[in-house]
Amino acid sequence: MTGQEIKEQDLQYNLHSWSKQGNLNPIPVEKSDGIYFWDYAGKRYADMSSQLVNLNLGHGNRQIVEAIKQQADQFCFMGPGYAVESRSRLAKMVIDLLPDNMGKVFFTNAGADANENAIKMARMFTGRNKIFSRYRSYHGSTFGAGNLTGEPRRYPLEPGIPGFVKFFDPYIYREPIEFAGEEAATAFYIAKLREQVHYEGPDNIAAIVLETVTGSNGVIIPPKGYLKGVRKICDDYGIMMICDEVMAGFGRTGKMFAFEHFDVKPDIVTFAKGITCGYVPLGGVAVAKKIAAYFDDHTLLCGLTYSAHPLACAAGVATLNYYKEAHILEQVEKTGKVLGQILEEIKTRHACVGDVRYIGLFSAVELVKDKTTKEPLVAYGQDPQGVMSGIIKQLTAKGFVTYSHENMILVAPPLIITEAQLREMMAILDEVLTDMDQVITTRKTA
Amino acid sequence: MTGQEIKEQDLQYNLHSWSKQGNLNPIPVEKSDGIYFWDYAGKRYADMSSQLVNLNLGHGNRQIVEAIKQQADQFCFMGPGYAVESRSRLAKMVIDLLPDNMGKVFFTNAGADANENAIKMARMFTGRNKIFSRYRSYHGSTFGAGNLTGEPRRYPLEPGIPGFVKFFDPYIYREPIEFAGEEAATAFYIAKLREQVHYEGPDNIAAIVLETVTGSNGVIIPPKGYLKGVRKICDDYGIMMICDEVMAGFGRTGKMFAFEHFDVKPDIVTFAKGITCGYVPLGGVAVAKKIAAYFDDHTLLCGLTYSAHPLACAAGVATLNYYKEAHILEQVEKTGKVLGQILEEIKTRHACVGDVRYIGLFSAVELVKDKTTKEPLVAYGQDPQGVMSGIIKQLTAKGFVTYSHENMILVAPPLIITEAQLREMMAILDEVLTDMDQVITTRKTA
Ligand SMILES: Cc1ncc(COP(=O)(O)O)c(C=O)c1O
Ligand SMILES: Cc1ncc(COP(=O)(O)O)c(C=O)c1O
Repeated sequence: MTGQEIKEQDLQYNLHSWSKQGNLNPIPVEKSDGIYFWDYAGKRYADMSSQLVNLNLGHGNRQIVEAIKQQADQFCFMGPGYAVESRSRLAKMVIDLLPDNMGKVFFTNAGADANENAIKMARMFTGRNKIFSRYRSYHGSTFGAGNLTGEPRRYPLEPGIPGFVKFFDPYIYREPIEFAGEEAATAFYIAKLREQVHYEGPDNIAAIVLETVTGSNGVIIPPKGYLKGVRKICDDYGIMMICDEVMAGFGRTGKMFAFEHFDVKPDIVTFAKGITCGYVPLGGVAVAKKIAAYFDDHTLLCGLTYSAHPLACAAGVATLNYYKEAHILEQVEKTGKVLGQILEEIKTRHACVGDVRYIGLFSAVELVKDKTTKEPLVAYGQDPQGVMSGIIKQLTAKGFVTYSHENMILVAPPLIITEAQLREMMAILDEVLTDMDQVITTRKTA
Repeated sequence: MTGQEIKEQDLQYNLHSWSKQGNLNPIPVEKSDGIYFWDYAGKRYADMSSQLVNLNLGHGNRQIVEAIKQQADQFCFMGPGYAVESRSRLAKMVIDLLPDNMGKVFFTNAGADANENAIKMARMFTGRNKIFSRYRSYHGSTFGAGNLTGEPRRYPLEPGIPGFVKFFDPYIYREPIEFAGEEAATAFYIAKLREQVHYEGPDNIAAIVLETVTGSNGVIIPPKGYLKGVRKICDDYGIMMICDEVMAGFGRTGKMFAFEHFDVKPDIVTFAKGITCGYVPLGGVAVAKKIAAYFDDHTLLCGLTYSAHPLACAAGVATLNYYKEAHILEQVEKTGKVLGQILEEIKTRHACVGDVRYIGLFSAVELVKDKTTKEPLVAYGQDPQGVMSGIIKQLTAKGFVTYSHENMILVAPPLIITEAQLREMMAILDEVLTDMDQVITTRKTA
């Protein structure tokens, strides 16, 4: 098929996520390699969001592809009740990567159902019902994961599930009060959380679920001591601490798991994306030994047809091996520093940039109309003139693809990006932001 | 790794679905082909449940494997926003297989999230909240799909989501009243459903969700006119009729979709399993043209990272091609008749068999202590002596693998099974049931 045919047939028969279908213009993709992909006209795009922040090792990684092909030749599928080599290997590899308190893995298909199963297990293990999660978080779009989610993608699932409680995250840049420093901020957020736990009844709370680093809502990084504070609350009241590492995990932040930056051990870790880079759909829930032991003589009331899919597990084994063999964490350590420097320069130089947040190769640029008032470039949930989509289009035209969320632009390239590639691409972002500076300055003087 | 190592490592690190982990004994699988698979000791097993009723084309289908390998060489993943050949092809193929009222497909990872998205879309399209589904149904184990589910696998998700309403299915064999015939049964069930719709408020109801043929709860086949009756209620009140074809679809019943037996057109069809035979995880929701059109200018508030995964779509294209090229439906037509005859003989011959139900290669054998009283061999939700698992173990030892549900044994082999293979395997079931006849007869005389 030609690119045009593929696109037309796509629009005629496929429903696309999170969109009005009437005005879509999908790029037909012919091939991909490393940080790049190409449309059928031969135009090259640098994938500066690693698709949906899942292609941590970029496109066309031969080791993962070969592992998939080999497993396909042995067999593609055996049900979750059987013992299968790739399944056994991957489960051990995941547990070996995690802190010593972790015991077993329950594999799922993706991020949403990882979170679904995590909260089910926390409820079974604790015998409690309530689940805490945060505003400005995204945990998936199925009913359970969507009820965890603290932003508009939850709305179609309302009225919500009884017992799901939201609290506020440490979004210091836009907090209506000014803190004396990071520690003061942490003290505030932890005190408020403890207060809310008291008022919801600590004995009713099964779990506190958080994205270790909030991803699609703007790379919001916990201040110093915050996660330890959450851990302490969980310990004090027997609440399970669930870290959603679906987006932040597997090297994205420069550590294998983001919580390693903050010196805490969660009770439950959910993951997806980076475990296979999305080459084959896979997600999972890793649980502490105490939880695993509980299910020795209590029925685990979780299940799905494709749990621990052999082909997906084979892709996972190859992916985890590659992170190690190619020294990906060390690489992110280095390129992440470069990205941070570039972003700080961008913030200094551009009138339209209010804040930049970054950790490893995980970053967001938050756009404003005015640096002092911090007024967002587009109001929350509103962008009638398509200002943000305009920026994304401009970037795409210049071969820099990523996505925006509200007034933020995500920058999260494949972890294999070189420093030269990163500098080349960030220069493009710089150009587009310069245009935006002009727009807001012109508006102000007009 | 050796079979023993694989098994030990599996038990040490993997959590298995729907089980106590303490007493598992998973078979380590080395290879598979057609209707068979083999453990590391070389023992052969006939897969008489097609794993979880997903391997419709059996193990090791070369056309699907080659399609996966080819797609893996082009690319494994592009996000749902892009136009991709395998994605465009598969969406068109699915719509072409469906009745002429169907318009577009939203692809998911599996059955549960297909149902999750179906009910979200029905709610958005109708602007209504309530969702009807049936007792004795299974729709998946995530919160939304699990709340649709009408059996104990729902319990860990309770208290449930507001607005999910259950009604009873036509389980004629165990209905406390006796019907004059199939039509009388249908008239009763449809009248009760209409009554319940009235009392829940027709204008509040977004959708009625049903497994076209109830699968894992015992292959319960709708009586003549039943689905037309449901369709009429939906038409009368603007309610979306959602057929869950996750297990019954793609040739299992002898038609491409089970609803084709009953001369109805659903508004929404959910599918998974047979679309790729599980070679790569894939599910989906097909919606009527009117629903698809609604989302032209209303945002589709659904999304998942792996929606319409390119590798999965490539497997789907090959699978659908194979059904056609190998004349699978015609084959099921023939072998299904043989299966039906054998099952009727089994019912006549065995004291422990209360009922047999079958359509295509989809069947269940319902076991009783007494044919006249119909007392189930094990009480609902209870089998402290492990009678049913004992039967499954006996079958497995003889190389016949399947699973049981309550007092029922599922028989649903790959659709490629030959008549000779079917007869050979059913003779094994016959043997094991003869043993069970003895047990219940001895008990009665004792
Ligand atoms: C932090 C986080 N959790 C969960 C999910 C849901 O994952 P999936 O889209 O695979 O269901 C996402 C997806 O972006 C995510 O970013
Ligand atoms: C009828 C039906 N619907 C939905 C599901 C859920 O599918 P999955 O296990 O892929 O989530 C199943 C699984 O057996 C099913 O039989």
